[in-house]
Amino acid sequence: MRQWILPEYVEDILPAEARRIEMMRRRIMDLLWVHGYELVGPPLLEYVESLLSGSGGDTNLRMFKVVDQLSGRMMGLRADMTPQVARIDAHLLNRKGITRLCYAGSVLHTLPSGLTRTREPLQIGAELYGHSGLESDLEVQRLLLESLAIAGLPEIHLDLGHVAVFRGLVRGSGIPAELETELFEVLQAKDTDALKSLCAGLTKHVDTCAREALLLLPELYGDVEVLERARRFLPDYPEIRTALDELETVGEELNPLVDTLAFDLADLRGYHYHSGMVFAAYAGNSPNAIALGGRYDEVGKAFGRARPATGFSMDLRELSGLVQPGPSPRGILAPYIKGEKALEQKIVQLRNEGEIVVVELPGHERDQDMFNCDRKLVLEGGVWLTAGIEVDLNVGLEQ
Amino acid sequence: MRQWILPEYVEDILPAEARRIEMMRRRIMDLLWVHGYELVGPPLLEYVESLLSGSGGDTNLRMFKVVDQLSGRMMGLRADMTPQVARIDAHLLNRKGITRLCYAGSVLHTLPSGLTRTREPLQIGAELYGHSGLESDLEVQRLLLESLAIAGLPEIHLDLGHVAVFRGLVRGSGIPAELETELFEVLQAKDTDALKSLCAGLTKHVDTCAREALLLLPELYGDVEVLERARRFLPDYPEIRTALDELETVGEELNPLVDTLAFDLADLRGYHYHSGMVFAAYAGNSPNAIALGGRYDEVGKAFGRARPATGFSMDLRELSGLVQPGPSPRGILAPYIKGEKALEQKIVQLRNEGEIVVVELPGHERDQDMFNCDRKLVLEGGVWLTAGIEVDLNVGLEQ
Repeated sequence: MRQWILPEYVEDILPAEARRIEMMRRRIMDLLWVHGYELVGPPLLEYVESLLSGSGGDTNLRMFKVVDQLSGRMMGLRADMTPQVARIDAHLLNRKGITRLCYAGSVLHTLPSGLTRTREPLQIGAELYGHSGLESDLEVQRLLLESLAIAGLPEIHLDLGHVAVFRGLVRGSGIPAELETELFEVLQAKDTDALKSLCAGLTKHVDTCAREALLLLPELYGDVEVLERARRFLPDYPEIRTALDELETVGEELNPLVDTLAFDLADLRGYHYHSGMVFAAYAGNSPNAIALGGRYDEVGKAFGRARPATGFSMDLRELSGLVQPGPSPRGILAPYIKGEKALEQKIVQLRNEGEIVVVELPGHERDQDMFNCDRKLVLEGGVWLTAGIEVDLNVGLEQ
Repeated sequence: MRQWILPEYVEDILPAEARRIEMMRRRIMDLLWVHGYELVGPPLLEYVESLLSGSGGDTNLRMFKVVDQLSGRMMGLRADMTPQVARIDAHLLNRKGITRLCYAGSVLHTLPSGLTRTREPLQIGAELYGHSGLESDLEVQRLLLESLAIAGLPEIHLDLGHVAVFRGLVRGSGIPAELETELFEVLQAKDTDALKSLCAGLTKHVDTCAREALLLLPELYGDVEVLERARRFLPDYPEIRTALDELETVGEELNPLVDTLAFDLADLRGYHYHSGMVFAAYAGNSPNAIALGGRYDEVGKAFGRARPATGFSMDLRELSGLVQPGPSPRGILAPYIKGEKALEQKIVQLRNEGEIVVVELPGHERDQDMFNCDRKLVLEGGVWLTAGIEVDLNVGLEQ
């Protein structure tokens, strides 16, 4: 086994991509910053119980674990930063009013979540705590769409869902809790045969209307007409009515900001912790959602302080793979001449203007072209000037 | 045990510090960028053997380890990014000429390296591969000093050393290899008593001159006179002579760039992998070195491709703790008025200018002051303007 082989689904980020990701990260963070989102940096490692608090059930399996040599307790490597940021809001900042936070950092997964996924996503996201109205949902959804636009992602599609539709249906119709989990699983897997047979077994618990509504859910995917059909065919429970109205309002607001938008009433991603509107963004031909988000008003509860919250997160590495790379930056070659003050000043000036100036080190004047320098500093009439490298090769400095 | 307690020596980075670190990171990365250093992003996790290749002996104990569920092999969480970057230079980029790379990311240590140290340093650094002359040492040393200046670190002190002094002394005088390690350990611990008794036992191996030179080493710390004393009292081996000349040249070049500079001929930090000039920077009253660096021409060898290399690295969290915090940024409050286009345009304009504009969400107009907004958007004569919040409180929008 050669020593430089990396584990599967673990990759180095090489210069061109590293630069692209860094610029994307800065643009998104600057956008969040001017919207009043404060940056926080939770640690890579925490006690396992802390990382599992309020997170979904599969987090435990996705998390690498190590022993803390100082306490003997198990620590986990974060697989998701969202619960950490909720902990910071709940306990460290502990503010009464609205708190807007953002974050960017690596998370680690024991196994990749798909064949094209890395085990070290670079998660970036924003969270708004302390407000339960639709205005905060809209604020984070707009921010997500602006982030994708500023990152250069093409053809944005947005899916909107609302966990209160399924939850309202189950609870309003009196379906027992143990069946809720089963129903949730078949709906999430979009397994209509299993759904049918489960619903057939529900006769002794619920009426025909609720059973038919459950069977209809997977079909309630599409444009605004979906909401009309839902109003007509789903039971008229207040929870469902409110959810459908909220979806319609948000859909109208966001429609001008995306290429396509759809409602998905069977979208149960994050059902275990989400409590309101949920959304997923897609770009170009990407089969996977590139950003996920939604409302999860109960997540702080695990830390003893439930706060309304809504936010989004995404993987910068995945985004970077979907963006058309721009032209490579080009540098300027400078000769190495000790004590030549005018040359040093020129180099400082060019660098202050943002130019890359690569100094040719003695003995290696011919192998600097790896940086794609297209210009060179030359002395003409006692003044140091930049000249195109082709020009310089013809005219020659040494003439 | 409360669930939100963090492990010892593991911390959250809260907004003010997170912002400070982020700005420092960007300034240093931009400086490295205009000098032609390309950013790379090695993974947090690698196979243990790969992370240990070419690194010092204590890395193994400092490294957290986890099992790779895909291969059954042990993976380590990086405790140092330098060997990873050397691997990228040696195998992924595999360029013939000079390669300049930089990096920034978290590393993890099983135990803190001191009572004031975190177990999750935020390492940032630069490496120059493919050049063995003093010019590349000078380039990275200057870059380090510029990085510290741009980061706002006060009172910089630089220690310069050269592992060839001790190495030349040991090898030139014929001290057996097993005694080299013992001598190295007592010198590193600055344990002069142990050094004396070790030297006394060396009589059958080496002459008086070499023994006295070894005893002198811990005293060879100070300004340029140290080099004079070294030339007079250390044996006149070519390796030592060259090292002293190099130290003198570099000292002359760097003296104007620092507050104080000293030569330390017994500095053996990184002796196991360093091969030439080494340096350590201190700021203000910090007892620990805040940046370390040096030449290590043999590190690529473990990956099958030895390349001359010189570089530096430091911990952004430590730097941030030593910098005087600037004034907190202040935002502008904006009312939430649906469909008010002129207000929306004003907000977009202010944000494009870099201002933080925080929208007051309905029902929470009074609790936004956590962000320290000192201005507010008000409508005057049909135009949205920013007004100081005190002024606004007196005059009142609603008059």
